[in-house]
Amino acid sequence: MTSKRINQLINFLKEIDKAKLVERKVLISDLSRYENDAEHSWHTAMFALLFKDDLPKNLDIDKIIRMLLIHDLGEIYAGDTFAFDGEGKKTQNKREMKATKKLFRRLPKDLNQEFLKLYNEYEEAETPEGKFAKSFDKLHPILQNLISGGQAWKKHKVSYEDIDEHKRQFLNHDKTIMKVYNIFLKEIKRRKLA
Amino acid sequence: MTSKRINQLINFLKEIDKAKLVERKVLISDLSRYENDAEHSWHTAMFALLFKDDLPKNLDIDKIIRMLLIHDLGEIYAGDTFAFDGEGKKTQNKREMKATKKLFRRLPKDLNQEFLKLYNEYEEAETPEGKFAKSFDKLHPILQNLISGGQAWKKHKVSYEDIDEHKRQFLNHDKTIMKVYNIFLKEIKRRKLA
Repeated sequence: MTSKRINQLINFLKEIDKAKLVERKVLISDLSRYENDAEHSWHTAMFALLFKDDLPKNLDIDKIIRMLLIHDLGEIYAGDTFAFDGEGKKTQNKREMKATKKLFRRLPKDLNQEFLKLYNEYEEAETPEGKFAKSFDKLHPILQNLISGGQAWKKHKVSYEDIDEHKRQFLNHDKTIMKVYNIFLKEIKRRKLA
Repeated sequence: MTSKRINQLINFLKEIDKAKLVERKVLISDLSRYENDAEHSWHTAMFALLFKDDLPKNLDIDKIIRMLLIHDLGEIYAGDTFAFDGEGKKTQNKREMKATKKLFRRLPKDLNQEFLKLYNEYEEAETPEGKFAKSFDKLHPILQNLISGGQAWKKHKVSYEDIDEHKRQFLNHDKTIMKVYNIFLKEIKRRKLA
């Protein structure tokens, strides 16, 4: 391993510390502050690790975990876009792709290509692994809102119907994922969180 | 998948949100606050993902990543122990093992056993995967101090010699890891951070 390559990787690890500064729209459990991208990435990876034995047998869970670890890195430059921000959503894909490419260019060529491939597979959500990674990314903010009393939904006037209209399309490819989602929906209703 | 199992997993995912509240001793890059365990777990997993192609060929990288994702969960109940806190260190293993077992008991039996096995392999650091996972856990706080001007070392009066005495034993099993470590040591010296 050359010093040049090691230094590139170290510098990348320093740069992505900034994921800890990318604020999301939802609070953590003690309501003291907003969650950030590093925490979200870890939490979504934990979804995959916990539900893995109840998903289709031929899924590559570790690929899903890798996708989830890197899926929001582009937001270091592009910022977080709220799932219910209609205007932001229009340009989100393009902005995030550009930012992700910019960040990954800091990597050695092989890792740049590997990470871009992972990111694209996540973003397109067409392969089984891409679909499940995307599902966990869409389930996690619901969990986070359940933990924090639905504060983000209240603040941004997001209704139960808004949530369902946005989320269901990313979840209805799998039975287990839909079971989790339905339990979440029930809790939202029961506690009148949206 | 039974509702009971799904609810157990959802409740576990809610409980581990508290990892975002476990403060570590080192600051994030804008110096605005201390890093927490969720962020640290994500960042150490990123070490593994970035260095994987420069480590021994037969390593199970994804096992290392899984270990790193869960390795600090016990701190939700046991709290973080600073690597240079002599008193805390004496009881750390016992306290953290007890806390980890308590947390993992919330899981279905199969996952409880699987997570405990992963945790023990990490903690013992005797298998190749355990050793590398532990190395990344020991390298990351150095990186985090480089990012934040060595503030944690200064505040707690940790010297260059203290760092080396503690860290080297977890790193000197591998050439690549030692190369990274030596680059870190050089930066500490050059910038007089400890």
